[in-house]
Amino acid sequence: MEIGAVNSLSYEDFVDTFGNVVEKCPIIVAAVWSRRPFASLLDMEVSINEFIEALPESGREGILRCHPDLAGKDLQSGTLTEESREEQGHAGLDTLDAAEIAHMARLNTQYKLRFGFPFVICARMNNKATILRELSERLKNDRAVELACAIEEVKKICHLRLKTLMLHDLPNKL
Amino acid sequence: MEIGAVNSLSYEDFVDTFGNVVEKCPIIVAAVWSRRPFASLLDMEVSINEFIEALPESGREGILRCHPDLAGKDLQSGTLTEESREEQGHAGLDTLDAAEIAHMARLNTQYKLRFGFPFVICARMNNKATILRELSERLKNDRAVELACAIEEVKKICHLRLKTLMLHDLPNKL
Repeated sequence: MEIGAVNSLSYEDFVDTFGNVVEKCPIIVAAVWSRRPFASLLDMEVSINEFIEALPESGREGILRCHPDLAGKDLQSGTLTEESREEQGHAGLDTLDAAEIAHMARLNTQYKLRFGFPFVICARMNNKATILRELSERLKNDRAVELACAIEEVKKICHLRLKTLMLHDLPNKL
Repeated sequence: MEIGAVNSLSYEDFVDTFGNVVEKCPIIVAAVWSRRPFASLLDMEVSINEFIEALPESGREGILRCHPDLAGKDLQSGTLTEESREEQGHAGLDTLDAAEIAHMARLNTQYKLRFGFPFVICARMNNKATILRELSERLKNDRAVELACAIEEVKKICHLRLKTLMLHDLPNKL
């Protein structure tokens, strides 16, 4: 998929295609459509990241609060977005045993009580062991450091979702 | 529903409950959760409006681009959000005849080509006749005036969705 074809999309097709590159935040790509034409996929990704960074702190927290828990109730009940389901599955979070699920839930709860947003990590770049280790480690961060850290993970997730769409899904949608 | 009960909601319950007061933009209430405690429902609504106004222009355009067309393909195919379906139905947009649907579609297309976002109006405060008249009239606005006008409509929709949730749905969800 060439960037020229992306640039020619109506805002409706653009939001339909890229709306979930940041989980449940279609407003972000809907806003970034205003920045066309993009010189490259990287240019588009930079525009998304700049939009995220220009949000007030509460807006960046809001992005995180639109994310599901890892190995949480949305995974158990089948209500994850397609992208999250694939990513959590890729990291092996859909095959945890009961003790592992309970352990993850305890840490997720501690994290949410401490920071007021869920633990977000790029599951495709991790596995069950590294996710649990990072969750325990990042619980020790102070709040400002952790917010920045979590937003960097959002950008990594976005990067991989964009790449996947450009390589695979997009030609079928057009 | 008392504001005290709203203030005691976890971010997850808050986003589950109020996530669509601005159409398909749960990030907005997810961000505004950081502003608790709210003194009143009005105070919460003011916080939402302030968040919207603090967005860059592209972000306000992004909000509009998350809205469906009035009497458009989402209404025809049954893919509107529950709130939009009720509102468009209230204004009689679900009982247009073929000629009226075609007329509305032509005007919607003209509007989107001119402004790069869809025509948004608070359907609950209007009917088929006033919506068609406003659509024709607002097509003549210059872009900055029209963006501001459309965002004021988003706030009216949000106001009525908030009131409905506080009066009816919320006690059942808690």
